[in-house]
Amino acid sequence: MRDEFMGKKRLSTKDLEAIPIDLGFHREPSNASDWVAYQVVKSMRIPVDFFFRKKYIHRVVALETVAAVPGMVAGLLRHLRSLRRCSHDGGWISHLLHEAENERMHLLTWMKVAQPTILERLLVTAVQGVFFNVFFTLYILSDRTAHRVVGYLEEQAVISYTHMLDEIKAGVLENGPAPKIAIDYWNLEETATIRDVCLAMRLDEAVHMHTNHHLSDRIALKQEDLRVDIHKLQEERGMIPKDNAEEVWSKPNKY
Amino acid sequence: MRDEFMGKKRLSTKDLEAIPIDLGFHREPSNASDWVAYQVVKSMRIPVDFFFRKKYIHRVVALETVAAVPGMVAGLLRHLRSLRRCSHDGGWISHLLHEAENERMHLLTWMKVAQPTILERLLVTAVQGVFFNVFFTLYILSDRTAHRVVGYLEEQAVISYTHMLDEIKAGVLENGPAPKIAIDYWNLEETATIRDVCLAMRLDEAVHMHTNHHLSDRIALKQEDLRVDIHKLQEERGMIPKDNAEEVWSKPNKY
Ligand SMILES: [Fe+2]
Ligand SMILES: [Fe+2]
Ligand SMILES: [Fe+2]
Ligand SMILES: [Fe+2]
Repeated sequence: MRDEFMGKKRLSTKDLEAIPIDLGFHREPSNASDWVAYQVVKSMRIPVDFFFRKKYIHRVVALETVAAVPGMVAGLLRHLRSLRRCSHDGGWISHLLHEAENERMHLLTWMKVAQPTILERLLVTAVQGVFFNVFFTLYILSDRTAHRVVGYLEEQAVISYTHMLDEIKAGVLENGPAPKIAIDYWNLEETATIRDVCLAMRLDEAVHMHTNHHLSDRIALKQEDLRVDIHKLQEERGMIPKDNAEEVWSKPNKY
Repeated sequence: MRDEFMGKKRLSTKDLEAIPIDLGFHREPSNASDWVAYQVVKSMRIPVDFFFRKKYIHRVVALETVAAVPGMVAGLLRHLRSLRRCSHDGGWISHLLHEAENERMHLLTWMKVAQPTILERLLVTAVQGVFFNVFFTLYILSDRTAHRVVGYLEEQAVISYTHMLDEIKAGVLENGPAPKIAIDYWNLEETATIRDVCLAMRLDEAVHMHTNHHLSDRIALKQEDLRVDIHKLQEERGMIPKDNAEEVWSKPNKY
């Protein structure tokens, strides 16, 4: 959970808009593992583009049905690994499980906004069943590639929420009241709208994006203890794109 | 984590001994599902009795290698279920994941006390591989039976730690200094001993025991929302053994 959502004061639209976010961030694949990850995410877009085209709210919900899986799977596998190796987990597990919890709240929020039909629920179940097994296997084969996949998925999530905000602005999507579950979770004002929820979720997705790219970098650099700073190593290995290395987290929020 | 371990003052041996614990608690199987669970745990004791006989420290470590699996598996499956059903989890997930984390700390602590050999690590890996799959399948077939299995396993854990405390008292087991990881985790005094660690862990196991029996009762009673009190329903259905219904948590700590 972002610090901004844990303060005492409830957040207004202005507060949400003022939180810096790194829109348009893209991590260039810098090796074969990254390239595989990028192709996986690009190929996942094909059925999504086909089914939903420009219905951004549907894209977002489709995305959220898979988004809560990786954190849980990664947390589980690192828990079991810590037991087998009898070693500390470097701080990863609680981090990953919190990410899963955060994504579950995203999905539950959208399910309050748009009550799903039985067919849609069956679809969620099927997608979950496939994605759980695929991600589980991928994580065992290469956790580095797996976290990169999540990094790229989250880039798409930031883009999708930006498109949704565009549609709300253009009046294509109705800007109704935020459901109570979202007001409580993100500490929003009682009068908060769907647009505020999108802003809050987009901020979450930006955190997941940077976190998962960062975790993948750590595995590549063989430095998995989160207490050790790797910023210098990342720069040396060209893992931080030069053109936006300075701008990360400092760009103004577009909406 | 028990409240007692989260205070500001570090805990002395006296403090640990003063915390009430329900020694000798046993939940009688009250239906077929319970009976199956009890037989599962009894059959798991056969290889343990054969291999370790009265080497209680080995029993405890063997127990801890499997103990961290159920909370994680149950947390994972309830997370996925919450996503599929688009419904709140009733407060179970974070509870279960914290139990898994607590059990992982138990194992890591013992691994600091007795550095495992390569053979022992291989054994841990094999046991984990089997138990993970068995428990995963059982939880899908009947989460009610699965939580009852954990309840019975934890009864054994309380007994094993009591035997270990006996051996320390009798001088069979050496009472060395507690490892730092345990002092930090349970908020013990700097001079804490292995015996203090056993007392702290036994208190944890008693919580897991009651919690998992309780969760199994909830599933049987179809009341999975942890905010709803089920004590009366449990009494009506004879789920709280009459002879110790009053004594639970009020017996003095034997060691
Ligand atoms: Fe999300
Ligand atoms: Fe996300
Ligand atoms: Fe334990
Ligand atoms: Fe336990």
